[in-house]
Amino acid sequence: MKDKTIIRDRIALLRSSLLSSGLDALIVPQADPHGSEYIARRWQARRWLSGFTGSAGDLVVTLADAALWADSRYWLQAGQQLEDTGIGVVEEGKPDAPSIVDWLAAHLPQGAKVGYDSALISVDKAKSFGEKLSARGLELVLVDDPLGDVWKERPALPQSPVLIHPECYAGESVDSKIASVRRYAADHGASAVLLVDLAQIAWTLNLRGTDINCNPVVISYLFVDNRCAVWFVDPAKLTPEVDEYLREHFIDVLPYDAVADFLDGLAESVLVNSAQVPAKLASHISSCVESNDFFLAVLKACRNKDQIEGTRTAMLQDGVAMVNAFFELDRRMAAGERVTEIGVAELLEAERSKQPGYLCLSFESIVGYAEHGAIVHYTATAESDVVLSPDNLLLVDSGATYLCGTTDITRTFSLGNPTVEQKTDFTLVLKGMIDLARAVFPVGTRGAQLDVLARAEMWRHGAAYLHGTGHGVGHCLNVHEGPQSIRMQENPVELRPGMLTSDEPGIYRAGKYGIRCENLILCVPAFTTDMGEFLKFETMTLYPFDTTLVEASMLDRAEIEWFNGYQTRVYELLAPLLDSDEKRVWLENKCKTLDI
Amino acid sequence: MKDKTIIRDRIALLRSSLLSSGLDALIVPQADPHGSEYIARRWQARRWLSGFTGSAGDLVVTLADAALWADSRYWLQAGQQLEDTGIGVVEEGKPDAPSIVDWLAAHLPQGAKVGYDSALISVDKAKSFGEKLSARGLELVLVDDPLGDVWKERPALPQSPVLIHPECYAGESVDSKIASVRRYAADHGASAVLLVDLAQIAWTLNLRGTDINCNPVVISYLFVDNRCAVWFVDPAKLTPEVDEYLREHFIDVLPYDAVADFLDGLAESVLVNSAQVPAKLASHISSCVESNDFFLAVLKACRNKDQIEGTRTAMLQDGVAMVNAFFELDRRMAAGERVTEIGVAELLEAERSKQPGYLCLSFESIVGYAEHGAIVHYTATAESDVVLSPDNLLLVDSGATYLCGTTDITRTFSLGNPTVEQKTDFTLVLKGMIDLARAVFPVGTRGAQLDVLARAEMWRHGAAYLHGTGHGVGHCLNVHEGPQSIRMQENPVELRPGMLTSDEPGIYRAGKYGIRCENLILCVPAFTTDMGEFLKFETMTLYPFDTTLVEASMLDRAEIEWFNGYQTRVYELLAPLLDSDEKRVWLENKCKTLDI
Repeated sequence: MKDKTIIRDRIALLRSSLLSSGLDALIVPQADPHGSEYIARRWQARRWLSGFTGSAGDLVVTLADAALWADSRYWLQAGQQLEDTGIGVVEEGKPDAPSIVDWLAAHLPQGAKVGYDSALISVDKAKSFGEKLSARGLELVLVDDPLGDVWKERPALPQSPVLIHPECYAGESVDSKIASVRRYAADHGASAVLLVDLAQIAWTLNLRGTDINCNPVVISYLFVDNRCAVWFVDPAKLTPEVDEYLREHFIDVLPYDAVADFLDGLAESVLVNSAQVPAKLASHISSCVESNDFFLAVLKACRNKDQIEGTRTAMLQDGVAMVNAFFELDRRMAAGERVTEIGVAELLEAERSKQPGYLCLSFESIVGYAEHGAIVHYTATAESDVVLSPDNLLLVDSGATYLCGTTDITRTFSLGNPTVEQKTDFTLVLKGMIDLARAVFPVGTRGAQLDVLARAEMWRHGAAYLHGTGHGVGHCLNVHEGPQSIRMQENPVELRPGMLTSDEPGIYRAGKYGIRCENLILCVPAFTTDMGEFLKFETMTLYPFDTTLVEASMLDRAEIEWFNGYQTRVYELLAPLLDSDEKRVWLENKCKTLDI
Repeated sequence: MKDKTIIRDRIALLRSSLLSSGLDALIVPQADPHGSEYIARRWQARRWLSGFTGSAGDLVVTLADAALWADSRYWLQAGQQLEDTGIGVVEEGKPDAPSIVDWLAAHLPQGAKVGYDSALISVDKAKSFGEKLSARGLELVLVDDPLGDVWKERPALPQSPVLIHPECYAGESVDSKIASVRRYAADHGASAVLLVDLAQIAWTLNLRGTDINCNPVVISYLFVDNRCAVWFVDPAKLTPEVDEYLREHFIDVLPYDAVADFLDGLAESVLVNSAQVPAKLASHISSCVESNDFFLAVLKACRNKDQIEGTRTAMLQDGVAMVNAFFELDRRMAAGERVTEIGVAELLEAERSKQPGYLCLSFESIVGYAEHGAIVHYTATAESDVVLSPDNLLLVDSGATYLCGTTDITRTFSLGNPTVEQKTDFTLVLKGMIDLARAVFPVGTRGAQLDVLARAEMWRHGAAYLHGTGHGVGHCLNVHEGPQSIRMQENPVELRPGMLTSDEPGIYRAGKYGIRCENLILCVPAFTTDMGEFLKFETMTLYPFDTTLVEASMLDRAEIEWFNGYQTRVYELLAPLLDSDEKRVWLENKCKTLDI
């Protein structure tokens, strides 16, 4: 309860500040000025204010009420963490869940002023959100640093050093990428571009950092016109090697905070992505060309040959790390040693960090035993951590970023005595994952068209999951990177060769267990007929599925053939890389196939 | 070639008119002032000008060029009908096909004026099309009757009588529906509604007509406020019985052409559907509330119990008509008599028109033999008609509107010697149709999410069709009625219980044959689990599939069970209604099942 008092005090302090600045409410988004999904501690105001640790979810505070919008991954977690804080949880995705605008309209008088940090809202969102509020008689007020008086102990900007992403992994030079950025400006009739998206900046410059936990990016802005490229970054982060690299490629450096002043002095037209650039920064551009297309995002998402080769290597070494970790887990369990969820996460991190070119985990490992597996983005804490027993299911979703590529894999294991319900659910999930992986589709197909392939069979059995089936994955970059996705919601981006996407259906039985199977799948050309050009997926991830959870009679012949081919391929590719025959025998047993 | 000279002369006349009115181009849409898909001859200017008879496709004429935009159904037909007319065909849906705006930008100088009949463009389209033209330096000019000087022999408005659609079929009174229309106005803060959509008007009033070929609607407008309902319709069409009915339900009648003057005199706020109401009419409303939501369209689409019962009856009698027609076709073919495509269409129409409550065909029957089957919306003409031989495939897409419901069914038959390619293609199409029909899905699912179920397997084999998989079907109304659809393109409308949609994948081999299998499927509740409320489809159409075209080894067990269950059910339901044992034996043979 001590924590909850701190939270109540912080919210009270914010309310005083709102009162004195004439605001009736403040939106505290989980956001940074770069449109990032995972954000540096400097911008984790929502977490500091509410105590909720989820990676998504905006907080809204009025003078009398407060609520946090949690998506289905976080319904359970938000409910637990926000208990007794005075902050309610709105379970987004439920039919009766109000939108933030609906909720504000119900809780505020007509004409009320709703504040939003102008550095944390994109030009597009400021426009659409402002219109929605206005339609309900409320006013959006963009505010400069609304938490300045409240959040005194705010963390500084991260100071981690910058690394060069070698061209042998990137497959394309920084000069070539800057030329693409210039073409992007010219295509929109602009003479310059301002990039704020940290993954796009890292990709363009072939540079990486460790500024954000699990996201190998550098907090910075990049300005490119026909004469120059200016990187706005703390110069203290640059090693002599990086300094030399930047000089060699004619990239100027200015301090991170200098970007607004720099833009103020510009006469030329500057292209910005209006879905990403903060309203505050756009207001400094006198001739602003707005676009929210996916030009650079698509370029970045479509891997070249070197990146694909690197991704294959990343999958091999990640598979070996998984074998080493789970071999050790099996040994400990068999020896009756005490193993907890955190212990499994530590084993995985230890093994991954031994692999060549390891930069960081691609996200905090999710190790959910039994009912914890049903909390979709569960991360074990000292309080929640449990000891594994030889019973029930263990869901492990984890991955790493290596110089050669980024991985993201989920496996669900039976620790003993699988029930009929568990086997049925597991097989439905596996079947969905296989059916999407086996898809063949014409050029021009969007992810939303294919999403149902992973869901159709479980729907027939009355099961469903509310999260997306697939997210794009960056290359030695962020584990969630668009622009493509495979989900129920419409997304106009077409799937293209070279795009790497996750394939991760799941079934979650609250209070009992969670099941998810996840591989990364690469979009590749399939064939061309007189009816069109077709694409398909190549499954990249390499680690066996738990055959003891498969009810083979529920799979059709093609699915069983896919499964057996996969298990066999995993063994053939990983076995030669293992450091003992004992592990090879262990892996062979894990790679069991099904009888046809 | 004589026809083609007439077309060239008409286009030349239009160009003179454009010159004298200062326009650089005119869009001649396939449209009427009601947003109808099928339109009365009075508004078939595009057909009169171009000679192209397809049911969709806009014509664009500049001073020097002319082109018609044909969707994939009409690529072949447009190419044939427009040959030597000087009008090019743009094959919409092909990757390199220009949009009308792109084409105009490429063919006109900057600042050029593009005319559009203000009665034939909706408020929404005028806005979006105007913006698109403007972005390319062109100007949209809305014109009052731009063909007035050109189309001298323009047909008058149809004069067919109005019929009452009995409440026992409609399942809801006109008073109750007018109350819904008033609620629709109130929900949007308006005090009145102007309806222009002919199906919505017919549905609201429980009245039908024969003003448009195959669409049992009455050309009219309907105005409803809290005091009155005014129907703008030619009074000459009203029988004494209809007059009495209108009086009884307090519905006033004014002439069709009086609507603009009526609106001019109104002070109250009038709700219009901005996606349907013509710009011309909206300009007469001083306080216009615009919405393009699907409120009434969804109400109309969701069948009540009586409508569902009626739809079942319609399927039974349509199935009997099909049996009678194809029994006779078989007899004639066996006797070596000469049968042509038109002959089959006539047989079908004769049998359907004998059924109780028959109003009209729901569309011109498509009877495509051999390569004609590959022309998606082929209608046999005196010139194209061919004699059927005991070989190759016959595609028949047909249906009728009865008082109790509207049908739409496609079957593809082998007339002899089916090839391996034909059987493979047929089975892929059948499999897709079955897989969609068997879908179970959560409340909230959109048609675009399910579309791939009908395509996934044929895509794997390199085959594809470009048309939608399913369109909504009206109840004793238009055969194409939204708002729901099942197609590749996003459509935000959710599938709901009571919606009737077609399920009609196809494979078309140009120059060889076409295959399509079509049933109508009703959305119904499936079950509720702790993971949500689920819906499914009930297949309504009753007529067997040609078992000789099925390659059973390509179907999985569930698909074969579905097929066998369907064939058996068709026999059980239709056999008792046939008028001879000979036909029953014949049907039993047609309803053959597959070995499991």
